[in-house]
Amino acid sequence: MVFEKETIDPAAQEMLQVAEEEGRETTWDLREQMEPQCGFGDTGVCCNICLQGPCRVNPNYNEKGNQKGICGARDYTIVARNLVRHTVGGTSSHSGHARHVAELFREVAEGHVDSYEVKDKEKLMKVADKLEIETEDRETNEIAKEVAEEAIGNFIGFHGEELSWLEPMVPESRYQIFNECNIIPTGINDAINEAMHRTAMGVDSDPLNLIFGNLQTALADFTGCTIGTDLSDIIFGTPEVVESEANLGVLDEDAVNVIVHGHEPVLSEKVVAAAKKLEDEAKEAGAENGINVAGICCTGNELLMRQGVPLATNFASQELAIMTGAVDAMVVDIQCIMPSIQSVANCYHTEIITTIPFSKISGAKHIEFNDSTADQDAEEIVRTAIEAYKERPKEINIPDYKSKLMAGFSFEEIENILSQVNEDDPLSVINDAIDEGDIKGICLFAGCNNTKVTHDKNHTEVAKGLVENDVLCVATGCVANALGKAGFMLPEAVEEYAGEGLKRFFSKLNEELGKELPLIWHMGSCVDNSRLIEFVTALANHKGVDIGEYPIVASAPEPMHEKAVSIGSWCVTIGLTTHVGVLPQITGSRLVTEVATKVAKDVYDGYFILESDPEAAVEELVAELDERTWVQDMKA
Amino acid sequence: MVFEKETIDPAAQEMLQVAEEEGRETTWDLREQMEPQCGFGDTGVCCNICLQGPCRVNPNYNEKGNQKGICGARDYTIVARNLVRHTVGGTSSHSGHARHVAELFREVAEGHVDSYEVKDKEKLMKVADKLEIETEDRETNEIAKEVAEEAIGNFIGFHGEELSWLEPMVPESRYQIFNECNIIPTGINDAINEAMHRTAMGVDSDPLNLIFGNLQTALADFTGCTIGTDLSDIIFGTPEVVESEANLGVLDEDAVNVIVHGHEPVLSEKVVAAAKKLEDEAKEAGAENGINVAGICCTGNELLMRQGVPLATNFASQELAIMTGAVDAMVVDIQCIMPSIQSVANCYHTEIITTIPFSKISGAKHIEFNDSTADQDAEEIVRTAIEAYKERPKEINIPDYKSKLMAGFSFEEIENILSQVNEDDPLSVINDAIDEGDIKGICLFAGCNNTKVTHDKNHTEVAKGLVENDVLCVATGCVANALGKAGFMLPEAVEEYAGEGLKRFFSKLNEELGKELPLIWHMGSCVDNSRLIEFVTALANHKGVDIGEYPIVASAPEPMHEKAVSIGSWCVTIGLTTHVGVLPQITGSRLVTEVATKVAKDVYDGYFILESDPEAAVEELVAELDERTWVQDMKA
Ligand code: SF4
Ligand code: SF4
Ligand code: FES
Ligand code: FES
Ligand SMILES: [Fe+2]
Ligand SMILES: [Fe+2]
Repeated sequence: MVFEKETIDPAAQEMLQVAEEEGRETTWDLREQMEPQCGFGDTGVCCNICLQGPCRVNPNYNEKGNQKGICGARDYTIVARNLVRHTVGGTSSHSGHARHVAELFREVAEGHVDSYEVKDKEKLMKVADKLEIETEDRETNEIAKEVAEEAIGNFIGFHGEELSWLEPMVPESRYQIFNECNIIPTGINDAINEAMHRTAMGVDSDPLNLIFGNLQTALADFTGCTIGTDLSDIIFGTPEVVESEANLGVLDEDAVNVIVHGHEPVLSEKVVAAAKKLEDEAKEAGAENGINVAGICCTGNELLMRQGVPLATNFASQELAIMTGAVDAMVVDIQCIMPSIQSVANCYHTEIITTIPFSKISGAKHIEFNDSTADQDAEEIVRTAIEAYKERPKEINIPDYKSKLMAGFSFEEIENILSQVNEDDPLSVINDAIDEGDIKGICLFAGCNNTKVTHDKNHTEVAKGLVENDVLCVATGCVANALGKAGFMLPEAVEEYAGEGLKRFFSKLNEELGKELPLIWHMGSCVDNSRLIEFVTALANHKGVDIGEYPIVASAPEPMHEKAVSIGSWCVTIGLTTHVGVLPQITGSRLVTEVATKVAKDVYDGYFILESDPEAAVEELVAELDERTWVQDMKA
Repeated sequence: MVFEKETIDPAAQEMLQVAEEEGRETTWDLREQMEPQCGFGDTGVCCNICLQGPCRVNPNYNEKGNQKGICGARDYTIVARNLVRHTVGGTSSHSGHARHVAELFREVAEGHVDSYEVKDKEKLMKVADKLEIETEDRETNEIAKEVAEEAIGNFIGFHGEELSWLEPMVPESRYQIFNECNIIPTGINDAINEAMHRTAMGVDSDPLNLIFGNLQTALADFTGCTIGTDLSDIIFGTPEVVESEANLGVLDEDAVNVIVHGHEPVLSEKVVAAAKKLEDEAKEAGAENGINVAGICCTGNELLMRQGVPLATNFASQELAIMTGAVDAMVVDIQCIMPSIQSVANCYHTEIITTIPFSKISGAKHIEFNDSTADQDAEEIVRTAIEAYKERPKEINIPDYKSKLMAGFSFEEIENILSQVNEDDPLSVINDAIDEGDIKGICLFAGCNNTKVTHDKNHTEVAKGLVENDVLCVATGCVANALGKAGFMLPEAVEEYAGEGLKRFFSKLNEELGKELPLIWHMGSCVDNSRLIEFVTALANHKGVDIGEYPIVASAPEPMHEKAVSIGSWCVTIGLTTHVGVLPQITGSRLVTEVATKVAKDVYDGYFILESDPEAAVEELVAELDERTWVQDMKA
């Protein structure tokens, strides 16, 4: 098959054919033109932190070359500083997202906006309980206000204060470890500030100190993610199982196609509502099927989880959606939006609409989205799409590929499902299956796409390998999207891919439930990786062990964004051994690499597996799960 | 003379000879080994913001090459993002420094620490007035507490709130311009967070939007600097004119030599006090002259300004201080500390002592400095130096070069001096001299050293050129240090270097004062660039014009740190045309370069002059001052 070096997604392959025929440039072309990539930057040993740079030191310990930057910084200092700054980029991204939700939530709680409300009171009460906020005999709004203040306090926390959202999210034993290493952040913004400062020229040059700084920043990131998830659930509802579809085939020739792309539910939820409302206007404009909203990246995941909105595609293939000629508007907010989409859209009738003041694209239409005028803004956006639809040329290329999928596996929904099996002790359903050997453990799939590897290939191959080895898999972000497109999020996939133990687990479960669960569980967007930690903390507490002793691993087969760096960092800190399928830019320092892949285990139980070969990765992940179980058995 | 390519400082030249003889590696050797530096990084067109990178695009518009990163990011996006992240590095550095002072101040105000106090009540009242905090009939501590809360509020300020420290620092007309461009930050930490987020992969790719984001971050930096200066003055005293000496000749063969290096006065003030207290212990250990404290970088400037402590040297030559063999301990806190000092110290008896938890150097001794145990910590540090002194080998090489200098020109002290000439209207002394043509205008010298140019050469040559052209010059940071070493901060220098007009200005002034002022005025450390803005705001208000219309320029002849990037950015935003003597990493984008060097003028009156040739720089700076005066004359 053609284009198999670029992607394993048949819809994307078909579109690459179209791109070639029409002479359009894609990210894969740019990738090819970029080769060979600079080996210094690629291994993290290029420093540009002061105006004396760039300094590049020789990452090859066996050859002659510069071993120090102009200021005397060694490979390990340069690599560790770059790593910390990547984590800061990730933390500021997640927390920027979460902060927007927190600010909106405060407005909601204070009754300043009409367009949003506390939709899920149960979740509000749960979050309030977690934060030890009094809930009895209190008005919902009073509780909401206090939760909002607490959330904002976690962002602005200043030296001497402490993050209240972090402690209840992990087992006590784990928080103890954080405490012993002195890596508990005092506030998200504060952690970001200090991390940027310590990595400035002539501040921290001790690689171990920098690495601890990295983990501290990562815990701030984790806290931000959790706040993002919790408050989004309160405002938009906690996800429950839904059915939908994924891949470019969800685009509808006979509808106004609006793609929402980026990360926040705040805007996109309103676009979905506006699309429903303006259905008739679309029909009047000639779109028989009205308006079809589909998602890309995590905005897509957010809407899929809560509204069953279909996924158009994931990160790497975002340009290809436009090349179908069927997208009337692509509405973007923040993160993972390739600047190239505007150049692609220039060749089509598609409107690229930016919505956030600090996230613009030259040449795109900017329709500013304000929480207080959310409904009107969303209507203006949808109307812009309807107008564009009128200009849509006849010739379009929608690839005929889409897969059904199930999503909506919030921790609450998982608990709910399990309690239908065992009302008194829902978590025992999982832990017993592990004890009985039906399940070898759990793996969280997270992360993006990265053109350094074939699109979606690592995702599907690592997943295939793990489920075959009886690992219960959950997924978020663009890997969830990939696994959805590839059919793994369906009950049928159990029969096709699962190992014998996992099959037994599902068949027992399905039988008792009287319905069929999908093989891999879609937990949501990037910030929703927090759901997995909530899940595994509950499981570990239930089992009476620390997360570092529980058979849990994580895998980011195709990491791209700085967010993946921060998520990976906190996964390891929280005790999950974490596979990374594209080499992170740390390999230029033997010291930093050894700490990440080996020494980390001694302190945090979790460590990094850097492995680009999916088969080898599966082997190592399975070995890690086996080892954890074996150690537990020895202790028992 | 030898080593004149590296440095024009005779003490440094002598030490480079020693280094060569003893086979020691210096930053200049590392610099040489680094050549050729990578042209992509050097011009800002290398992106490493996601794990698909590094992407490098062709900065040469006339040749073939990659014009886009893998995600489609163009040169202008990549350059603008890198620029913003540099400014964030600078902002987090200054504000990290200021935050420490603010936290300490809060502790002082609340009576939680004994080792520090409100030393300068007058300054406290002035700051309280500026912030519109009630001062009448209130206890000092009450006022201090409110000022402290306000300071901390400026750091943690959250969306929707506003920076109270910024508005009173600039003319109303200037604040108006900030407002119109929507670049007023809501909080220092908040600005840092948003700047990191907007520069993450797939967020902001519009270069103009990014540049406005850069300026917003820079204003947060300016606010942080101002808070740092104001609160340091309150705790440690507002500087008044002092006399001292500068250059390696200040090291004393017969004393325990303690070098304080870095940026904060909090620690170093205590080291000075401890040194006085432990004088006898040093003598007992055999050091006839007791303990000699000298400074490097801005810690040095802080102590010089307030205590008359001599300057050992500035940034580029920090390693050379150790190579004298006469430094018993080099105590460092944060910023501009070359990691190489430890490798150098390994060849000597010198103890490198780190003091701040997030700023360590592998191999150095760490003596943690806590505000609450400040006196004891400082004593431990000084005793460590005394112990090291006992191990000092006989053979030392202190170059016999030092210059006398005067420092201490805080805005308050300048006002005080001017009011001795004209009590009712002190500022008219300057403004009249400008009107009469004795002074062509004012130049602020700021910034570091950068091994891309000959050490201290740009500093002295640009200064020479400007004073010859009747420009009244003030200086901070490592350029102040350079000009001090070179003898510009003495009254004698007026005769030697000043143009006729400037000579007239000084002779009138000196006559009326009955004492002699130095040619160039030392205003303090990097954060003290805020003093200049306070000064020029007063002058512009006095003249009834905006800063953009006032004959004021800035020059960073040898910028190195990210702090220089943020200072330069806010100088331009505040209306100062700003010369930069080492090309910043923006030249790979024609668009960004044009905005910085041209378009900025239309919006902010200030713009960047990128010019590595000092003569050409002088010409352009003088032309800018002339133009401003000429425009004013036309209007009058
Ligand atoms: S901080 Fe050091 S290694 Fe980095 S660019 Fe500057 S001189 Fe080079
Ligand atoms: S953000 Fe874009 S230009 Fe930068 S490294 Fe990633 S793909 Fe390359
Ligand atoms: S030298 Fe290649 S990324 Fe800097
Ligand atoms: S390619 Fe040289 S700095 Fe990246
Ligand atoms: Fe995402
Ligand atoms: Fe400085």
